[in-house]
Amino acid sequence: MHEVVIAGIGQTPVGEHWDVSLRELAARAIRAALENAPDLRPDALYVGNMLATVLSRQSQLGSLIADYAGMDHVEATTVEAGGASGAMALRVAYLAVASGAIDSALVLGVEKLSDQLPGETESAFATHLDADFEAVHGLTLTAQAAMLMRRYQHEYDVPQDGFAGFAINAHANGVGNPNAMFQRAIKAESYARAGMVAEPLNMFDVAPAADGAAAILLTRPEMLPDDHAHLPVYISGSSVVTDKLALHDRANPLLWEAARLSVERACEQADIQPQDADLFEVYDAFSIYSALSLEAAGFAVPGQGWQLAQQGGIGIEGPLPVTTLGGLKARGNPGGATGVYQAVEATMQLRQEAGENQVPGAKIALIQSLGGPGSTAVTHVLQCYPGDG
Amino acid sequence: MHEVVIAGIGQTPVGEHWDVSLRELAARAIRAALENAPDLRPDALYVGNMLATVLSRQSQLGSLIADYAGMDHVEATTVEAGGASGAMALRVAYLAVASGAIDSALVLGVEKLSDQLPGETESAFATHLDADFEAVHGLTLTAQAAMLMRRYQHEYDVPQDGFAGFAINAHANGVGNPNAMFQRAIKAESYARAGMVAEPLNMFDVAPAADGAAAILLTRPEMLPDDHAHLPVYISGSSVVTDKLALHDRANPLLWEAARLSVERACEQADIQPQDADLFEVYDAFSIYSALSLEAAGFAVPGQGWQLAQQGGIGIEGPLPVTTLGGLKARGNPGGATGVYQAVEATMQLRQEAGENQVPGAKIALIQSLGGPGSTAVTHVLQCYPGDG
Repeated sequence: MHEVVIAGIGQTPVGEHWDVSLRELAARAIRAALENAPDLRPDALYVGNMLATVLSRQSQLGSLIADYAGMDHVEATTVEAGGASGAMALRVAYLAVASGAIDSALVLGVEKLSDQLPGETESAFATHLDADFEAVHGLTLTAQAAMLMRRYQHEYDVPQDGFAGFAINAHANGVGNPNAMFQRAIKAESYARAGMVAEPLNMFDVAPAADGAAAILLTRPEMLPDDHAHLPVYISGSSVVTDKLALHDRANPLLWEAARLSVERACEQADIQPQDADLFEVYDAFSIYSALSLEAAGFAVPGQGWQLAQQGGIGIEGPLPVTTLGGLKARGNPGGATGVYQAVEATMQLRQEAGENQVPGAKIALIQSLGGPGSTAVTHVLQCYPGDG
Repeated sequence: MHEVVIAGIGQTPVGEHWDVSLRELAARAIRAALENAPDLRPDALYVGNMLATVLSRQSQLGSLIADYAGMDHVEATTVEAGGASGAMALRVAYLAVASGAIDSALVLGVEKLSDQLPGETESAFATHLDADFEAVHGLTLTAQAAMLMRRYQHEYDVPQDGFAGFAINAHANGVGNPNAMFQRAIKAESYARAGMVAEPLNMFDVAPAADGAAAILLTRPEMLPDDHAHLPVYISGSSVVTDKLALHDRANPLLWEAARLSVERACEQADIQPQDADLFEVYDAFSIYSALSLEAAGFAVPGQGWQLAQQGGIGIEGPLPVTTLGGLKARGNPGGATGVYQAVEATMQLRQEAGENQVPGAKIALIQSLGGPGSTAVTHVLQCYPGDG
């Protein structure tokens, strides 16, 4: 296998882009990534998107976006794995470049979720669940997360405000991210006063659905010119693992086996321990997801993940910085674009370009996206090496 | 790059499976492919599907089907490229195995199109067009194909029954395929009498939307045990090329540049000429597509593709056998499964397992799937070598 590096990154602000079409959002992120690596031209485009066919009645995004962005006749396709779609597009592009068939691949995550009738986006998100045995009964991802959170609180005796630390950390980190949807810090009292979305899940336990696009240019290290402007960031580990889709089919819904295995395998490939990571971009679609992901990755024993956040251990200066540029909660959750945002942000950290959110001396980043409640887990290890640049 | 071979194939009959769920259809094809290569266990699943999110409200098919088919914790994702989704899943799986990251990958194409309200399937197919500039005006794939056909007839002075040869050939080949949706031959008079779907496109110019699933197990040749039961079929060429999505953006809608380039590149990789192929599985969603694909691939000059069929040149015993097991027209068009059916059928031909439809001594097969009117073109060269087996 060839080594694979991230040569260019680009992103649009995350938010409600009422006046920007899906293709235009995509093209903006692509232009930014290409300007970030002006010495390379991609020969393939892998699009992470989960719901455009439903919400925009647009499939075949590969051809649409390659065309609109001026990438004539390149290879292009869409990759879908629920909320992990963007991370999966990164995985597929990684394999294409690692194989040697593709010299330089553009990974694009794009999603437009806000321009919808009430309820339509939540209903579309529910397609990530088992249509015949979960969604058919009216279950949504949010309702399911609420049940998971209640079960967790019951099982491990966790207080009502036990999850506050995740939202407080995410919003604190959103302040320094000009692309974040929410750039204001919140206090513990705000969390305590927040309205319920689905008990016990309150407004601050849920990441906002948003519009956005992010892009990454991958290549083999030998393709980089000597005067390439940025420290090359290596994809040293990449792993995808699936679990039973329906939560009721799992022996224990609070133990996320796919999340655990994918961290284990990605770290094994990178020849690191999870604890060697200088930061961890978790998939904080819901605060309960953050707790369970941290536990699955081995940063806390089951039932203790929430305490990492409560004790301030996940801040920029803490032992394990998490959601360092706001995560899904404050940066926003633009569906299939989210996994690519995670990789863009981790690359900024490893390039030491994260500004006031910089994790001091970050060399290794762990990033993970999930489809549904850990039904699909995609984990990557990004790494820069002291000798590079 | 590692070499990649097809080790196992499986398929369900194509048709209207009112009583079989999407996941069950998928599992049946997977079981058949695994029984065809009992000495291998896949570590990844790539699902080609285009419309389950819209028509079955089910996304994240990778996790769903891996789970249901008993492939615990494997890597899995969905790949979408309109009508080329199945072929694109084959491409992505090919890259994964070629990279060395995956030892053995299962490619699954699955689609359930028949269990819908009237008009819903056609409307869902229209998502392959440009939503903002084509479909918004009410354009469907069928209406667009009718306009292409009319333009072709006008430009090249082709008679009304000029396209009859494609349907007659497809239905003749469907007779010998127990998995085909239609297993009866048709006569020229039937074509001439057929009702119009969208003038000048009649019922026999349009492939039927259907349900079905097909699966292929890929691996590296050195993974095959010495006593593997089948002749290994090599993927010696693989290429994806996109064109402008909207037909009105192309200089000439009758010259399919992506289809041309993808054949050229796949053949270049395989080190063959298109004319070396013993058969060509074209994407005959509409008879006009067949004519334009044959011309793009260089088997006829522009405006003459229809004559290949009219003159009997595309039969099993002809100089260029086309749609040898019925094609989309007679085998049926189960959307994202179609490209995998094409590969399964080409493999049967190269293994000399195609029964009464066997192309004598077939050694090289060319297969092509299209998303929309050549907006995405995926071409593979399959090949067996005299020394093998």
